Amino acid sequence: MTKTYRVAILGATGAVGAELLDLLASRNFPVADLKLLASSRSAGRSLQFQGEKIEVESVNDRSFSNIDIVLASAGGSISKAWAAKAVADGAVVIDNSSAFRMEPHVPLVVPEVNPQAAASHQGIIANPNCTTILMSVAVWPLHQVKRVQRIVVATYQSASGAGARAMEEVKIQAQAILNGETPTAEILPYPLAFNLFPHNSPLNELGYCEEEMKMVNETRKIFNDQSIRVTATCVRVPVLRAHSEAINLEFETPMSVQEAKEILNKAPGVQIVEDWKANHFPMPIEATGRDPVLVGRIRQDISHSHSLELWLCGDQIRKGAALNAVQIAELLIEKDWLQPPTSGYQQPVTIVKS
Amino acid sequence: MTKTYRVAILGATGAVGAELLDLLASRNFPVADLKLLASSRSAGRSLQFQGEKIEVESVNDRSFSNIDIVLASAGGSISKAWAAKAVADGAVVIDNSSAFRMEPHVPLVVPEVNPQAAASHQGIIANPNCTTILMSVAVWPLHQVKRVQRIVVATYQSASGAGARAMEEVKIQAQAILNGETPTAEILPYPLAFNLFPHNSPLNELGYCEEEMKMVNETRKIFNDQSIRVTATCVRVPVLRAHSEAINLEFETPMSVQEAKEILNKAPGVQIVEDWKANHFPMPIEATGRDPVLVGRIRQDISHSHSLELWLCGDQIRKGAALNAVQIAELLIEKDWLQPPTSGYQQPVTIVKS
Repeated sequence: MTKTYRVAILGATGAVGAELLDLLASRNFPVADLKLLASSRSAGRSLQFQGEKIEVESVNDRSFSNIDIVLASAGGSISKAWAAKAVADGAVVIDNSSAFRMEPHVPLVVPEVNPQAAASHQGIIANPNCTTILMSVAVWPLHQVKRVQRIVVATYQSASGAGARAMEEVKIQAQAILNGETPTAEILPYPLAFNLFPHNSPLNELGYCEEEMKMVNETRKIFNDQSIRVTATCVRVPVLRAHSEAINLEFETPMSVQEAKEILNKAPGVQIVEDWKANHFPMPIEATGRDPVLVGRIRQDISHSHSLELWLCGDQIRKGAALNAVQIAELLIEKDWLQPPTSGYQQPVTIVKS
Repeated sequence: MTKTYRVAILGATGAVGAELLDLLASRNFPVADLKLLASSRSAGRSLQFQGEKIEVESVNDRSFSNIDIVLASAGGSISKAWAAKAVADGAVVIDNSSAFRMEPHVPLVVPEVNPQAAASHQGIIANPNCTTILMSVAVWPLHQVKRVQRIVVATYQSASGAGARAMEEVKIQAQAILNGETPTAEILPYPLAFNLFPHNSPLNELGYCEEEMKMVNETRKIFNDQSIRVTATCVRVPVLRAHSEAINLEFETPMSVQEAKEILNKAPGVQIVEDWKANHFPMPIEATGRDPVLVGRIRQDISHSHSLELWLCGDQIRKGAALNAVQIAELLIEKDWLQPPTSGYQQPVTIVKS
């Protein structure tokens, strides 16, 4: 008989929460019992799981007793408030927020890239930023064969990255514009329909926004390579839920297009989408609702002998968030790494700013 | 008394044609007489110019007698068919298509960058590709102070680049999606609303599309610098009429952010849009209908000591096409370079493929 686990979803009513429910069911995750947690605002609602209605509970001090795995996706402040309690109660927390990602003792895991990092968890494992997950799945297998020394990336990030309400807002804005009205923006900082803007996360003193620095710092941590140089321009575009990225990779020694394609063809989590005759390459609408990172337009950079260009799309809610978290949970089960941490989660002395 | 000129717009009923009409009026271009030319399909329609109705004529053998300046924006095949005739009849053709851009004896002109190139025209002057115009206006002033040796650019190109019917189509697609229907694509290769895709121009054997190679080759010709290395990823996004570009500039020697800002602050055709506190930078909706190229997020590339990152938006129909053409016409008048060519336009022996 398969062993089963008591799972809690913290942030069950959000866009990622809905996808987590879907994935636990469709992947036949060995769920013994599922607890749905959210803020008091959402408590009392019911969500479907495998044909059963489960009531959403307001998260509280008793929420995590008798829970093995918490899949947390309710934002950084909620994770900060509850993760230590969940760990103290014996659960492992797989956290989708940025709260713990850069803490030295918290593994930052993409199962296709650095599964072994999960082994040394102390109760919390962090799910990386969505754009970073997608990029790392495509770049890591190449980096294993010939070292990538520099990445220049420009992103095309969907509304879903700003949550379910942003996805709704961009549709309302689009309808307003089609009606000849002036769109308003409440969740998003500016109208996004038929528009785009640099990612609006806080800017650092160098002019990089938080989202961009996540791509820089999280890639280094996931790859366990502090010397890899990354620069990113992150842009929000009027797409609903899949992110795209134009990636320029500079290798230490030249990597041929043929070699890169052979590597990516065998790479876990990657699907090459290249129909050169039909001019058909990865598109957000074709990545939406799907697991793999779609990669295409792999070509020799004509401006640099050691560089390749590539283009990718991936579902932001799925591999960029929920799927990666579920894969981490599956990894812990498969490797028998789900043991309660020996010392429990400890507040770090310093938090490395991302 | 100001001298006036007999102007013909070839392709008057397109998106760029409409903007040309607007600009000739709003800039008080010294028009003696305006002839509107289009295919027989559009002939007979009337367009407004300075309060007067002008009938659109079908282009024919007699269209260019008594014309000083032809502003051509009807596509490459129409330009190829009629430009030589117009020049033989004594007109100067400012051509917005890609038909003649890479021919060695045809100047490729951005008035803020290489106005002097226009002096040596032989009847035809080419207007560069829209993305190239926008990039060159921002990069040229920096390149003048410290040589740019490599450009890595990713574009976010609006529907207008595919014409007025593509702009209409993306709105129809958006409405279909909002109605829960499946969008169709006739002008564009794929649904663009709430989606995006790599630019669908023909691909070369290296995997670069025509649009990308225009950015490579036209930048070299405009800058008169065959050694500048450029790589581009061109992407069509669901924006109506302004293009955006994420540009990584590698200089021969380091250029500080402060120096770059001082240079761009004084650069013709550039407006810096940077409100770091409000996280407000160039956006397509704020570039739409405006003349300058909006530049922002100028920052030191943290992955390369000699590189800067910047972000720009510019109206694709305006500075990316119609405005640049009108500025070339104004330049020819101002410099008295409008003389009939000495030898007339000659079919080139070889056409450099763009």
